[in-house]
Amino acid sequence: MRIDIANALGGEPALDREALDELDAEVAAVHDRITTGMETDEFGYAALNLPERTDTDEIRAAVAPFEDSETVLTVGIGGSALGAATIANALESETAAYFLDNVDPEQTTRLLDSLDLSRTAVNVVSKSGTTAETLANFLVVREAMQREGVDWTERTVVTTGSEGNLRNLAEKHDLPALPVPEGVPGRFAALSTVGLACAAIQGHDIDAVLAGAAAERDRLSGSLYDAPAYAYGAVSYALAERGAATNAFMPYAESLETFAEWFAQLWAESLGKDGQGQTPARALGATDQHSQLQLYRAGPRDKLVTLVRPTERADRDIPETELSGLSYLGGSSLGTLLDAELDATEASLAAADCPNVRVEIDRVDERGLGELLFGMEAACICYGELAGLSTFTQPAVEWGKKAARGLLGGGEFAESEQVRDRAQLLVE
Amino acid sequence: MRIDIANALGGEPALDREALDELDAEVAAVHDRITTGMETDEFGYAALNLPERTDTDEIRAAVAPFEDSETVLTVGIGGSALGAATIANALESETAAYFLDNVDPEQTTRLLDSLDLSRTAVNVVSKSGTTAETLANFLVVREAMQREGVDWTERTVVTTGSEGNLRNLAEKHDLPALPVPEGVPGRFAALSTVGLACAAIQGHDIDAVLAGAAAERDRLSGSLYDAPAYAYGAVSYALAERGAATNAFMPYAESLETFAEWFAQLWAESLGKDGQGQTPARALGATDQHSQLQLYRAGPRDKLVTLVRPTERADRDIPETELSGLSYLGGSSLGTLLDAELDATEASLAAADCPNVRVEIDRVDERGLGELLFGMEAACICYGELAGLSTFTQPAVEWGKKAARGLLGGGEFAESEQVRDRAQLLVE
Repeated sequence: MRIDIANALGGEPALDREALDELDAEVAAVHDRITTGMETDEFGYAALNLPERTDTDEIRAAVAPFEDSETVLTVGIGGSALGAATIANALESETAAYFLDNVDPEQTTRLLDSLDLSRTAVNVVSKSGTTAETLANFLVVREAMQREGVDWTERTVVTTGSEGNLRNLAEKHDLPALPVPEGVPGRFAALSTVGLACAAIQGHDIDAVLAGAAAERDRLSGSLYDAPAYAYGAVSYALAERGAATNAFMPYAESLETFAEWFAQLWAESLGKDGQGQTPARALGATDQHSQLQLYRAGPRDKLVTLVRPTERADRDIPETELSGLSYLGGSSLGTLLDAELDATEASLAAADCPNVRVEIDRVDERGLGELLFGMEAACICYGELAGLSTFTQPAVEWGKKAARGLLGGGEFAESEQVRDRAQLLVE
Repeated sequence: MRIDIANALGGEPALDREALDELDAEVAAVHDRITTGMETDEFGYAALNLPERTDTDEIRAAVAPFEDSETVLTVGIGGSALGAATIANALESETAAYFLDNVDPEQTTRLLDSLDLSRTAVNVVSKSGTTAETLANFLVVREAMQREGVDWTERTVVTTGSEGNLRNLAEKHDLPALPVPEGVPGRFAALSTVGLACAAIQGHDIDAVLAGAAAERDRLSGSLYDAPAYAYGAVSYALAERGAATNAFMPYAESLETFAEWFAQLWAESLGKDGQGQTPARALGATDQHSQLQLYRAGPRDKLVTLVRPTERADRDIPETELSGLSYLGGSSLGTLLDAELDATEASLAAADCPNVRVEIDRVDERGLGELLFGMEAACICYGELAGLSTFTQPAVEWGKKAARGLLGGGEFAESEQVRDRAQLLVE
């Protein structure tokens, strides 16, 4: 992963080289903190040890029974789905990957009706084994298999904690079962069993994902000017402190669209606390130049725009044309056009004083994805340390979970009463 | 469309009923302005006349040759794609819809390789007939058809202005050609030929879309308390003025995911100017409760969260279960769970003083989509009027278009020189 931070300086919010040099001393301390956390496998920091800790042989062995699958259906939500989806939607495979990461009845029915469940591997992921959405979907999928005469116990692999519903179920039915790593929050688990079981079923080179991640870990150092991940984390933090409340995250590759979703979870859930946190806004280049760029250039000066791209990709020629005024396109290529659009957008943001950062990998392949996943995790931890946040927790989501559970008759919770007591001011 | 604004009041940023009552006088003036604009078919305001102006017979006649199509491929970008995609991705059809709305060479090749082009209708949309991305993609598609021995002139419909490349091409090859409506910016064109040709090829009831839009138009009135569209626009504006820089737009239906993208363009490009404009952040319920909710509840007090849902949908039962602690789910349904999650999230935001608004339609069908599309357009215009913005222009995107064109050899532009002169501060 390479980061170009030149355009992060001199815009508005204002950040200059001197301020960044000062911040670099703090980054050195952050690096020490992170290194200690890694050495002691401390909660959260343990995620950065996954490149060497994750046992890819164990993953391959667990999914070996599903080699014949034409599709893999991952049932999970949030961190239990987004890492796997990032890889699945970035890389081509003959084994199609689908995700039940919501509880939309129409979508679920449509998806299950479209699959040959006898050729589908079901990959159920929940650390606790009690996540309402995931377990509800799993119950629905299991019933659909039974209805079609498919033995669900032959087609299901679970990734879960050492106890709980899913662990018990795996033991009872002798399902292949993978552990979730200790000390790793879900959104930091892409480089573990949680993110890689699906990729293994799809036949991707999961060792190469980890090799890319390890290469990115080796780039960590005591200075933001030497460590791409820290450069990204420190610049984002410094700009957020100065008013860049939004981080518009804009890959120039359709294959990285889900990576932007993964990033949005990582950033929002890790850094959104204590009244702090930069709001991630997912975008896609070049498409969103025709949607969001007007706002980025001419709206409030409260944004950092992150442009992400691979420097190499399979290209496609644009045919020569007789159409007037389009001869400049004919004989060029879609890739050349897309690259020119990123270059132009970057410069147009700079010309409008909108801070922006360029993130590059060589290719969208297993290694490149490993670099991006690890790099952004380390960047996020760096930001969290600089801001003094509790990066690895997400206490604010509990309220709603209790309320929903109470509404469904799963217990008595004061939160549910507040839902029932809601006021209305209806305009219709 | 129904709007519940009770939770927009009393949170942080602070907005109270008294301030809203004061704003209502301005809304009355805005309604007069909009009514005048509609009566005189003024640029932009003309969009609100589309429910009665759009000629659905003309659209059906133009696409009649494609009745045999198994897929429709829309080639367009920004406002030329998002309206059509909103409808296509919301409603089921036996005719699959795909979109080339980017210039990603890998994605384009993958898509074209997957289609039977002899059974594909190509729907090319560009008002000017010179949009670089759209014309490049069209040239690529045309060549792919020729390679496969498909007569592209038999399988292409264009929607374009009264002159330009596409109009000339249509005349030369006698292609079915639809006009773009006069005085309607692309992002406000969903209810015209631009958004409805694709829907017509898919066999959707485009008259019902317009009927839903007309019903929403009939709800416009001189008070925000009587007009759902103005209630949404006025509340968004008032909160933005008070610090809600972000509008997190979160449908609780997978089928409305693209509608959130359409909204994001409408909001960003219309209102993002003069240093103003609320940044749309697309989200999806219930999935993003596990991704963004932590930030919304515990991060900076700079957000409005918009929750959107249909009140009726095809449901799916959750089977009874022996799993411990999950009996409350067994015998319920996915729809009940999803509704409980919206209710719980709404209350959890209110409990955290985060302003939120609920938007409801009866069903995700043609009529409901018409209500949403028209309603949000009118809401956006209302916001723009209240803020004194030039809602219908997008001047800030021109810089990058010129720069990209220059980089590709399409002329000499000072902007391209700035791209070439870019500084670097590379961390690798």
